[in-house]
Amino acid sequence: MKPVSVGIVGLGTVGGGAFNLLRENAAEISRRTGREIRVSHVGVRRDNPDYDLSGTQVSKDIFAVVNDPAIDIVVEVIGGTTTARDVVMQAIANGKHVVTANKALLAEYGNEIFAAAEKKGVYVAFEAAVAGGVPIVKVMREGLAANRIEWLAGIINGTGNFILSEMREKGRDFYDVLTEAQALGYAEADPTFDVEGIDAAHKLTILASLAFGVPLQFKKAYTEGITKLTREDVAYAEELGFRIKHLGIARRVEKGIELRVHPTLIPAERLIANVNGVKNAVLVQSDPVGATLYYGSGAGAGPTASSIVADIVDVVRSMGSEQSNFVPHLAFQPHAITDTPILPMEDVVTSYYLRLTANDRPGVLADVTRILSQHGISIEAILQKPAHEAGSVPVIILTKPVVEREMNHAIAGMEGLNDIIGKVVRIRLENLDA
Amino acid sequence: MKPVSVGIVGLGTVGGGAFNLLRENAAEISRRTGREIRVSHVGVRRDNPDYDLSGTQVSKDIFAVVNDPAIDIVVEVIGGTTTARDVVMQAIANGKHVVTANKALLAEYGNEIFAAAEKKGVYVAFEAAVAGGVPIVKVMREGLAANRIEWLAGIINGTGNFILSEMREKGRDFYDVLTEAQALGYAEADPTFDVEGIDAAHKLTILASLAFGVPLQFKKAYTEGITKLTREDVAYAEELGFRIKHLGIARRVEKGIELRVHPTLIPAERLIANVNGVKNAVLVQSDPVGATLYYGSGAGAGPTASSIVADIVDVVRSMGSEQSNFVPHLAFQPHAITDTPILPMEDVVTSYYLRLTANDRPGVLADVTRILSQHGISIEAILQKPAHEAGSVPVIILTKPVVEREMNHAIAGMEGLNDIIGKVVRIRLENLDA
Repeated sequence: MKPVSVGIVGLGTVGGGAFNLLRENAAEISRRTGREIRVSHVGVRRDNPDYDLSGTQVSKDIFAVVNDPAIDIVVEVIGGTTTARDVVMQAIANGKHVVTANKALLAEYGNEIFAAAEKKGVYVAFEAAVAGGVPIVKVMREGLAANRIEWLAGIINGTGNFILSEMREKGRDFYDVLTEAQALGYAEADPTFDVEGIDAAHKLTILASLAFGVPLQFKKAYTEGITKLTREDVAYAEELGFRIKHLGIARRVEKGIELRVHPTLIPAERLIANVNGVKNAVLVQSDPVGATLYYGSGAGAGPTASSIVADIVDVVRSMGSEQSNFVPHLAFQPHAITDTPILPMEDVVTSYYLRLTANDRPGVLADVTRILSQHGISIEAILQKPAHEAGSVPVIILTKPVVEREMNHAIAGMEGLNDIIGKVVRIRLENLDA
Repeated sequence: MKPVSVGIVGLGTVGGGAFNLLRENAAEISRRTGREIRVSHVGVRRDNPDYDLSGTQVSKDIFAVVNDPAIDIVVEVIGGTTTARDVVMQAIANGKHVVTANKALLAEYGNEIFAAAEKKGVYVAFEAAVAGGVPIVKVMREGLAANRIEWLAGIINGTGNFILSEMREKGRDFYDVLTEAQALGYAEADPTFDVEGIDAAHKLTILASLAFGVPLQFKKAYTEGITKLTREDVAYAEELGFRIKHLGIARRVEKGIELRVHPTLIPAERLIANVNGVKNAVLVQSDPVGATLYYGSGAGAGPTASSIVADIVDVVRSMGSEQSNFVPHLAFQPHAITDTPILPMEDVVTSYYLRLTANDRPGVLADVTRILSQHGISIEAILQKPAHEAGSVPVIILTKPVVEREMNHAIAGMEGLNDIIGKVVRIRLENLDA
């Protein structure tokens, strides 16, 4: 059989990783596919890449790859949402299959990209876009195909998880760990995408569409970062039997779909609470399989290349089959995608961890519990710590589930009390009973 | 498009679960596949099954299903290796695709079954045969297709894991927990297959073939059960920072492939050490993705049905595509399956936990350590406990890695000492550094 010709656009860490993997594991890959997969054209703007490109055509004009008639599959790994979008759309227009690791592109322009691909009869594969080397896209689309997915919760940003793990294990402060993470190369010089939850929201947007058959709606995702977490809160959470993780959560409820990224207290004994360092994990609750969890490296050249090449193999296997037999891009047939509403955060129900700083005077706790009660909020646990400075005491309250709107009102009420100092710290809490 | 006709042979827990799932989640499944999947014929010997079979043809002669020309896919869920084998072989001979949950059948007769299917151009899918609802077969065959798999370690028998979890959490004895597990329905009246590791060895045999591209060789798997584990050893392991799990381990080493099921000490902080109760998990170390882990329910009607129906969906999608594009049954193309030798257990290198009962006399420890040293065995840790009865003391030794042959000699040497009472307890230890 004729070898499959792959063109790689972009030869940074990810593209280079895929290039090397196709070369280094060529024997193992061809033992599996029964077919040779050859990188025959690479588009790279830099002059002197760090890879041995002998035997491969190299173009500085990356569109030369996209327009090369010999290429069957275009691998887009330049990142970003401008040129990358043009590359992908042009490849589709040229009738080529696409493999991409670009979560931002798909979360923001995926609906249009998949529609174009479906019209043209080509496939856009994107295993590497979510959780790096963890084959979560395949699992959601194919492995769980018989299930009705109820919710999922993922640690889908390794940088954030590294920071939170260090804060807990070593009692360190956020910015202290962030600086180290930058030095280790785990965090970018501008860490906004990671620590503010934007990267996680991109991935969560994709996972939610795969889970529920809804269009990609990145703009409706609620996104809250981890920059305001203190080691104090991490320690109190631990004392109460919880760990704080930066989770992406998507849940189907009666009124619609929850789509949210925020720091979350989860019981320390949950398996996902024990996922530490730069690792990723996604916990999926579905019927009838129940809870399943998928864990591994969410970033890096090797893990990302593993997913890119698995996608190439899948695309190669689907070449020549009827389009109706392709695994649908978003797990559900295009005509079956339903525009279930994404709930505004105010309508989301969760439990809460609250930390208040109160003057050490009689009656304060009575006022606080009265306000909670007025808003129909039940208390699960209260922890009052010894006074730590000039007569103020930290009070930690865990609540039962309540709709966020009520909690907002209750917090405003508590912050209005004379004996409550400053802002009330609020972190959502999920039991993840599964 | 014409609906796909499925025939189910056997309507016990698993078959009934698949039958119900195809009916209950029909809408969700057809949103995904774009095609109706209909159970049109069921073969069941009993008169009065617990399912609503209206609209479905029912035959007491199960071969009537296999020979029904209207059936596209036969689901074999009767279990066992005699009639089930005939059912599967006859279905293949009739040109039908097969979906099975039968690990014993595949571990023992899979080579012949897959060869027949490949000759006939049909597919035998078996996601449900390993780790129940965890899509580990798909992950190994497709998700990790670009990787060179180095080793895998799995908790692949829920009954055994439930017993070990209870022993640790509640300090209970093996037979005490087994009796409860039988009452709860987690263990069979005859628990041999589960507690002696035979069921785990069936699944491990399949996983090893998927990992390394070797023929199925169940008879060469080393199998050791958990019936001799004491709560004493579970507690000492805990004290040393380890947990005991009944693992199936397959590893590629220079001389061949290790294939072994036995109780194993693993560091308590490993994610897989925290998989408790009846759950399953498989940890896979491969290049370049690194360590990935897959967790979920390993048994039960719902999880097993989830995998069976996912297989049906996959088979439906492959119908009409070229046989060369099928995902190979054992992950590697049939001509690329290589007969790498399975190592005899004596050639396997592991670390060890040893527990000796010694007379409380000077010089005993010197004798023991001398014997270990003579066999080139380095000590990682020693724990000598206070004398517990009539002057005898338990001594726990953790060793560094050593080939099993040497350890056998060393143990024989220690058991020959006058001051060592009874047998030396030996449990293998794996760090699972990943």
